[in-house]
Amino acid sequence: MVIAVDAAGGDYFPKNPVQGAIEAIGEKQDLTILLVGPEDLIKAELRNYSYDTDRIQILHAPDVIGMDESPSAAVKNKRNSSIVLGLSAHKQKKCEAFVSAGNTGALLAASMFILGKLEGVQRPTIAATIPTIKGIRLLIDAGANLELKPETYRQFAQMGTIYSREIMEIKDPTVGLINVGEEPEKGTELLKEVFGILKEIPNFRGNIEGRDIFNATADIFLCDGLIGNILLKFGESIPSTLQMIIGKTMKEMNLDADTRDTVVNVLHKSLHSFNYEHVGGIPFLGVDGISMVGHGGSTPAAVKNMILNASNCVEAGINEKIIASLQN
Amino acid sequence: MVIAVDAAGGDYFPKNPVQGAIEAIGEKQDLTILLVGPEDLIKAELRNYSYDTDRIQILHAPDVIGMDESPSAAVKNKRNSSIVLGLSAHKQKKCEAFVSAGNTGALLAASMFILGKLEGVQRPTIAATIPTIKGIRLLIDAGANLELKPETYRQFAQMGTIYSREIMEIKDPTVGLINVGEEPEKGTELLKEVFGILKEIPNFRGNIEGRDIFNATADIFLCDGLIGNILLKFGESIPSTLQMIIGKTMKEMNLDADTRDTVVNVLHKSLHSFNYEHVGGIPFLGVDGISMVGHGGSTPAAVKNMILNASNCVEAGINEKIIASLQN
Repeated sequence: MVIAVDAAGGDYFPKNPVQGAIEAIGEKQDLTILLVGPEDLIKAELRNYSYDTDRIQILHAPDVIGMDESPSAAVKNKRNSSIVLGLSAHKQKKCEAFVSAGNTGALLAASMFILGKLEGVQRPTIAATIPTIKGIRLLIDAGANLELKPETYRQFAQMGTIYSREIMEIKDPTVGLINVGEEPEKGTELLKEVFGILKEIPNFRGNIEGRDIFNATADIFLCDGLIGNILLKFGESIPSTLQMIIGKTMKEMNLDADTRDTVVNVLHKSLHSFNYEHVGGIPFLGVDGISMVGHGGSTPAAVKNMILNASNCVEAGINEKIIASLQN
Repeated sequence: MVIAVDAAGGDYFPKNPVQGAIEAIGEKQDLTILLVGPEDLIKAELRNYSYDTDRIQILHAPDVIGMDESPSAAVKNKRNSSIVLGLSAHKQKKCEAFVSAGNTGALLAASMFILGKLEGVQRPTIAATIPTIKGIRLLIDAGANLELKPETYRQFAQMGTIYSREIMEIKDPTVGLINVGEEPEKGTELLKEVFGILKEIPNFRGNIEGRDIFNATADIFLCDGLIGNILLKFGESIPSTLQMIIGKTMKEMNLDADTRDTVVNVLHKSLHSFNYEHVGGIPFLGVDGISMVGHGGSTPAAVKNMILNASNCVEAGINEKIIASLQN
């Protein structure tokens, strides 16, 4: 299996994508990596490692898309970027998947444009991973579609169910609709209509509230991309906020250095699962291919996990299962 | 000044409302409290305190509205409840304000129905307080209006500005519109239209993102009640989630009891400001009167602070200032 890796994406390229790729082939047999990016940069980085040279290939892509560039303009103008060339290689079946820690918007736009939609899919979506007290769970939509039609929620529920079960190894994943209360009559007219549609899928758990997310009273949290994006960014700000207020508290309490170190250590270990760099990438569901994006700050281990996730998607036949599910 | 206090609201009535009332008259001169609730319960509780009997009055209200009762049904059917009779007394100018730690929905419904709207107000709103690294700030709307018209956002911005400046003592409060990105063209068509309208108010800071809330890059966070309610409940679940994961981490680390106590102590002190019981009540803005609601678990100190907040609203002439602001 060949997985293409964006070697020009994320805050630490080419180092982290290249190192992640080398770690991935060390961990999984039958895996070949196609590193996509400026050839000279990739080659220079590869010199730092010893590896099976047959299993690391390079696709030269000189254009670099910045993390803050306008997605549509970047995809349109940078035809020789790693994202455009990598996804084109995937479309041409030169590789089975493409993963990137780069510009999420550009990757989404290019995935839609180059790969297209899976048969029967109304809208592709970003399914974000979110830490809970029960482990990592899915939040859909994470910002790809700010407004959704009722029937689209149903498709997102079905796609999220397949990804949760096949890739996240959650045995019987349930779906919750994020709302202002649990009763079916809660929320806007749109959400009431969505509730009526979701009722028809067997693993719909009902409405859930904001407090149910960290408690994971469902496994797939459904909402439109406006709410999803706001919730995710709010959640991402929790660790730094805590570090700040706990630091201030310890100063006020005049704790000695050893005690402060212990508290910081406990906090650090506790927040580890809340650190979005460690989940290894999230999928675009509903595109005709396997395209995953990781946090801009992805470590080599995060890139490696994203590659392994993508290869799991290929082996599990995620997209065939999505097509079959949407036909029911 | 007479402030009416719901002595039959919250999780700990009549004790906490009664004790809070007595603490309030001890702290502020010229304040008389009208305790509204079942007379026998109030009298029995009052026997535990010594106080100036001229400054604590009772309005008998035998019906009790439960915390989980349907708001509209409760207000309609329980005409002799503390909420209905207390707000009616306020409408009849027998008191200058009404505060309650009871059923928020019932209080909102009754406030709208009995007090009515202030001149020029399209929709009254709940302005929730939210802890940030810069202190307590306002989030509007907290769930009273799930969908808003563009012009209504502007009124909420104006009402929130007056409350922040006059009661929360924030000198030059700024308004941020919660969105998926900072640029004016971000978000739904509705949010783009709202941006265009908000641009006309002098203290509009622009769009803010989910991560800007705890960082308080604005002082008033504007959103519809759907987003506000979901964000608030998500935020409220942070302390218990943290306690759980930090407890688990400490167990795994095999820390000794003394160290565990220290960590718990630091966490407890740090999360103090995140504990919604301590903020002392939040206002319904835009109703023709002063009506405030506190957390169901309000301590006596929280009730006292809510009473003092309400008296500050009266003294500051909040509603006159809102009317004047909306005319501009």
